[in-house]
Amino acid sequence: MLQDVVTTLFGDPFAVMNTIGLVAFALVGASKAIREEFDVLGVTIVGLSMAFAGGATRDLLVTRVPLALQSPAEITLGLLGVGLAVALNLVLSAPETHPATLVSDAIGLAAFATTGAIVAAAAGVSAFGIVAIATINAVGGGAVADVLLDRAPFILFEDFYASCAVLGGTAYWAADALGATGSTAATVCVAITVGTRLTAVTYDWELPTVADEGRLGE
Amino acid sequence: MLQDVVTTLFGDPFAVMNTIGLVAFALVGASKAIREEFDVLGVTIVGLSMAFAGGATRDLLVTRVPLALQSPAEITLGLLGVGLAVALNLVLSAPETHPATLVSDAIGLAAFATTGAIVAAAAGVSAFGIVAIATINAVGGGAVADVLLDRAPFILFEDFYASCAVLGGTAYWAADALGATGSTAATVCVAITVGTRLTAVTYDWELPTVADEGRLGE
Amino acid sequence: MLQDVVTTLFGDPFAVMNTIGLVAFALVGASKAIREEFDVLGVTIVGLSMAFAGGATRDLLVTRVPLALQSPAEITLGLLGVGLAVALNLVLSAPETHPATLVSDAIGLAAFATTGAIVAAAAGVSAFGIVAIATINAVGGGAVADVLLDRAPFILFEDFYASCAVLGGTAYWAADALGATGSTAATVCVAITVGTRLTAVTYDWELPTVADEGRLGE
Repeated sequence: MLQDVVTTLFGDPFAVMNTIGLVAFALVGASKAIREEFDVLGVTIVGLSMAFAGGATRDLLVTRVPLALQSPAEITLGLLGVGLAVALNLVLSAPETHPATLVSDAIGLAAFATTGAIVAAAAGVSAFGIVAIATINAVGGGAVADVLLDRAPFILFEDFYASCAVLGGTAYWAADALGATGSTAATVCVAITVGTRLTAVTYDWELPTVADEGRLGE
Repeated sequence: MLQDVVTTLFGDPFAVMNTIGLVAFALVGASKAIREEFDVLGVTIVGLSMAFAGGATRDLLVTRVPLALQSPAEITLGLLGVGLAVALNLVLSAPETHPATLVSDAIGLAAFATTGAIVAAAAGVSAFGIVAIATINAVGGGAVADVLLDRAPFILFEDFYASCAVLGGTAYWAADALGATGSTAATVCVAITVGTRLTAVTYDWELPTVADEGRLGE
Repeated sequence: MLQDVVTTLFGDPFAVMNTIGLVAFALVGASKAIREEFDVLGVTIVGLSMAFAGGATRDLLVTRVPLALQSPAEITLGLLGVGLAVALNLVLSAPETHPATLVSDAIGLAAFATTGAIVAAAAGVSAFGIVAIATINAVGGGAVADVLLDRAPFILFEDFYASCAVLGGTAYWAADALGATGSTAATVCVAITVGTRLTAVTYDWELPTVADEGRLGE
């Protein structure tokens, strides 16, 4: 499959990354809702929200009608991800924390950081705009899913999550600024985002906290 | 009043449904905030948020300035609903859970599913887009109100709430696709949404949960 | 500095108020996140969200690409505020509740109520639209920050917070309707918002709650 992806990347990076991101994030979102014992509709809503929220926010930020509302393919891919989560739940005891889910999440994060950077660059926003939209596209779905699940957004506590998308988006901007083709910039963005994310999970990286424990302990 | 509604439906379905939805949802939202002992401003903000959030999201999704910010009539209707909630609170001991509030909520849900479907169909989105916008218009206000009240959105736990709007929106799309007039499609959408919602409340319908209790119980 | 502000006000009210609001709110948002022991990235995200969320919502409501994504100056000012919060944390034991933070918050509230009113008036929305956008621009950042911090939005419990922005926005609309210059309307909006906010904090003003304690106590 990676072969197909790499091959197709030289075709339409947005289409490939968008397809991968939708299925991966719908799977992760639905798994979180299943873990919380939501009913079938709740699981579907959380799964689709995680798949679509980041991209819809991205589209609204560049003032266009969200792709998810225009293309029938998007909903099909989202429901496919929800179905995979339900199937996965039948064979795994803790789908939300299973490696398969963590990897899907990292892949979705990288795929959506890339779609965000592609759309932002095309909209002609500032360098910060490219990085911000790439990050929002990548982490927006997870943040909305957590709010729907009444949790503090995981993206704020998982040290190397949003930061991986920030690095990927920055890499896309840099490659783009250096005159790389869209496919090259997309490949660099995907590689850096998924690479930093999986390395962080594997080695349990942590960022320093600003607060001084001692003082807060008073 | 139903007579007036039915009659007027053959005039401008959007105007009628929008008017009913604004008053009904402002009343429900304000009642929730009163129950949480919010102050006058908090009650007004939650009431207006519940009345306007779904429609504003709908308008942003089709990239137009929210109607609530353009038409002075909208705020008047929202404040009317908040006033009704305050009055209701003086005569009822638990306005949020009183049948009158549950019925207002079902009526608002149906009215907004219909305005969402009408606007979406006019914007020429996909079939999923029509159902999604109808559902977002219908449940968006309640979800925002619950977030403001720091609760997990009720729409995810109440089995037949969002699903009633999904059915109503689907019915609108089907009627529209079959060549029905806007008034007929609107009437079908209202009837199915409010009908399924009230039946669900009356008979306490529940959807199955995906999670396997046994395993989660471990 | 006040002198500069007043002087410049007669130049470009939007630029001045936007600059002040971005730094002030980024400082307040970052202080809240530091208090919650978030890591460096979390503190930056909450700080920038508080600085940008209100204005981005304002821009989306008038359907234009958020200024924060177009102007590099905005991110610089936001990061400056986050840096000030980190510095402040090194010298104060409770930055979030320190007078300096409360005053920054009041200044940000007034500055953003003004930028909201200016943009809304220029977009030609209704009188309610001007007051609503001024209020959303002023309190949106704080609401988003609180949601990210998994708290019920402070704006709903702090009696004279959103209400100060409502008064300021109304004053802007009135001055504008009476034919005042943009600078005069902006000055009136700032004075009334920051004045009512600081007076409320000083004298601990409270609005009455709608709920009847006795009944709720049952």
